[in-house]
Amino acid sequence: MADKVKVAINGYGTIGKRVASAVMRQDDMALIGVAKTKPDYDAYVAAKNGIDIYPVDPAKAESKFKAAGIKIAGSNEDMIKKADIIVDCTPGGIGEQNKPLYEKLGKKAIFQGGEEHELAGTSFNAVCNYDEAIGKQFVRVVSCNTTGLARLIYALDKGFGVKKVRATMMRRGGDPNDVKRGPINAIVPDPVKLPSHHGPDLNTVLPNIKIDTVAVKLPTTLMHMHYVNMNLKVTPSRDEVVSTLKQYPRLWLIPSWMNIKSTADVMEFGRELGRPRNDMMENCIWEESVSVDDSGEVNLFQAIHQESDAIPENVDCIRAMMGIEKDAKKSMDKTDKTLGLGNFAPWIQKLP
Amino acid sequence: MADKVKVAINGYGTIGKRVASAVMRQDDMALIGVAKTKPDYDAYVAAKNGIDIYPVDPAKAESKFKAAGIKIAGSNEDMIKKADIIVDCTPGGIGEQNKPLYEKLGKKAIFQGGEEHELAGTSFNAVCNYDEAIGKQFVRVVSCNTTGLARLIYALDKGFGVKKVRATMMRRGGDPNDVKRGPINAIVPDPVKLPSHHGPDLNTVLPNIKIDTVAVKLPTTLMHMHYVNMNLKVTPSRDEVVSTLKQYPRLWLIPSWMNIKSTADVMEFGRELGRPRNDMMENCIWEESVSVDDSGEVNLFQAIHQESDAIPENVDCIRAMMGIEKDAKKSMDKTDKTLGLGNFAPWIQKLP
Repeated sequence: MADKVKVAINGYGTIGKRVASAVMRQDDMALIGVAKTKPDYDAYVAAKNGIDIYPVDPAKAESKFKAAGIKIAGSNEDMIKKADIIVDCTPGGIGEQNKPLYEKLGKKAIFQGGEEHELAGTSFNAVCNYDEAIGKQFVRVVSCNTTGLARLIYALDKGFGVKKVRATMMRRGGDPNDVKRGPINAIVPDPVKLPSHHGPDLNTVLPNIKIDTVAVKLPTTLMHMHYVNMNLKVTPSRDEVVSTLKQYPRLWLIPSWMNIKSTADVMEFGRELGRPRNDMMENCIWEESVSVDDSGEVNLFQAIHQESDAIPENVDCIRAMMGIEKDAKKSMDKTDKTLGLGNFAPWIQKLP
Repeated sequence: MADKVKVAINGYGTIGKRVASAVMRQDDMALIGVAKTKPDYDAYVAAKNGIDIYPVDPAKAESKFKAAGIKIAGSNEDMIKKADIIVDCTPGGIGEQNKPLYEKLGKKAIFQGGEEHELAGTSFNAVCNYDEAIGKQFVRVVSCNTTGLARLIYALDKGFGVKKVRATMMRRGGDPNDVKRGPINAIVPDPVKLPSHHGPDLNTVLPNIKIDTVAVKLPTTLMHMHYVNMNLKVTPSRDEVVSTLKQYPRLWLIPSWMNIKSTADVMEFGRELGRPRNDMMENCIWEESVSVDDSGEVNLFQAIHQESDAIPENVDCIRAMMGIEKDAKKSMDKTDKTLGLGNFAPWIQKLP
């Protein structure tokens, strides 16, 4: 194998820490380090895991890190210089501010769904448009909600042709440790003016799909829930729809006997399996919910783990941009195997 | 080493599944099996982990388990017959119904804090009264809240003498996957008539402590929060109180630089560490919160993980009742080492 791709993570929050862990599991990538402004429990665990930490301003941060017993390896810019590619996991809008630095240093960078499509010019979902990212300097991995929609719609469009999609995103208010966000006791149409951005965002990776989307924010932290309605171009049986969904990667059909009745149960299942951080990176589709009428109209529920579902896409995006794997399926298979996707045996027992 | 103690788990919910995992990590115990009424995701993971499953009524349950691809090993009663000791983790009140069966079969049994003290006659917390459980047939491990109080109060009573305790229990409404419990938008004094049962319950393991307790239920699932006020018999410095707390097992003082600002951050830390099920079995005491005035009055906050803090106590209780370890400290050290308590390195790397 050629030299490993050197990956740096700029921003070490919900997404950044997961991309770091995922990169460390790839044999064709090496994690150079992560950017972290100040010491905290995330920095502590990163350091204990042997990850190099690069604050934006080491002079300012050094004494704080030293007091916490955590070494720092240099500045954020030092880290970026050492890397072949940067995965920018900073909060929405900050990626835009960082882009000039990546350009100046001639580095490739991946942005997350919180940035505008135009910042990168190419948006990405592995199963939909892997090829478009091959060799690019800047690519944006679409958000958790769009990733969840894209995987599902792609599968049914390939299988039967999709005429029209209507999707209702019931969004978590904030992530589990994000105690300052809300709502805590309301249902917030977000945005009120329709459609929500998810439909147009989906079209950045699946341009030919007609789609209406609405989103509401809810007082929960665990997952998003999607209610998806679709008109297909043909009229398959329910069994045909279910078996098609089962053939595509990163879609998990929840069997009814598992008695998974809510997003809380989905995450509890991830916890029982011993998955790292309980992450359920697959679209979790209630098999029982899938219904198809005699005009080819499909309805279903899927739960989307906002913290983790786009993580495998980031790994695949690195491979595409670096040109180390030109075949989408091969990259996805490798990513899924190393991250344990689609594998519902207790995590530690079965991974390579 | 002598034969391993054969342990059966009756009831495989929040507590039962954790006791099962903890027993499997002990070299002086063998897990015979667990009782599970019907197949679900918990049963699925148990079976994948090689745990034998014994439904109460196998004739009734067999077809359901078969359809789910899960083998059953016999009836609940078969399981109990094979065991030296049963850890009864059934919902509060059911343990009382089960006791006659344990008596009939001449088996030892541990009950949980949801049962009355009188059912067992002996209540248990490892650091407080390990010796009282030695050789007993029936013992009750006190509840999560009482366990958290007992560990803390024991340490300060040994260190300085405790004159009086006043404790406010801010309780989680339900466990993370327990979607039917509330409240979801209220603060419930529980009970309204004071004191709450926690004070008298503490006296089952620390009989000489004067204590007033109140409890409220809140719309959260992650942990309980205790505000504890204590009058000590002497007037130590704050540093003396902090360093005494640091000497006792199963008390973790959260350093302020970790930026752990809520129960959500405590559990996120457990998640980052990769602890099984994210469990934080230690009392999580905010070091910054510890204050001591010039009359020896102490105030502090501690977070208590209701799903897991009594798990190590169940393991110690098995050793005491079976008489295989007469020394409380030796049992606790063994339990803590095998479960990773007090070890804040990423879990998988450092355990034996």
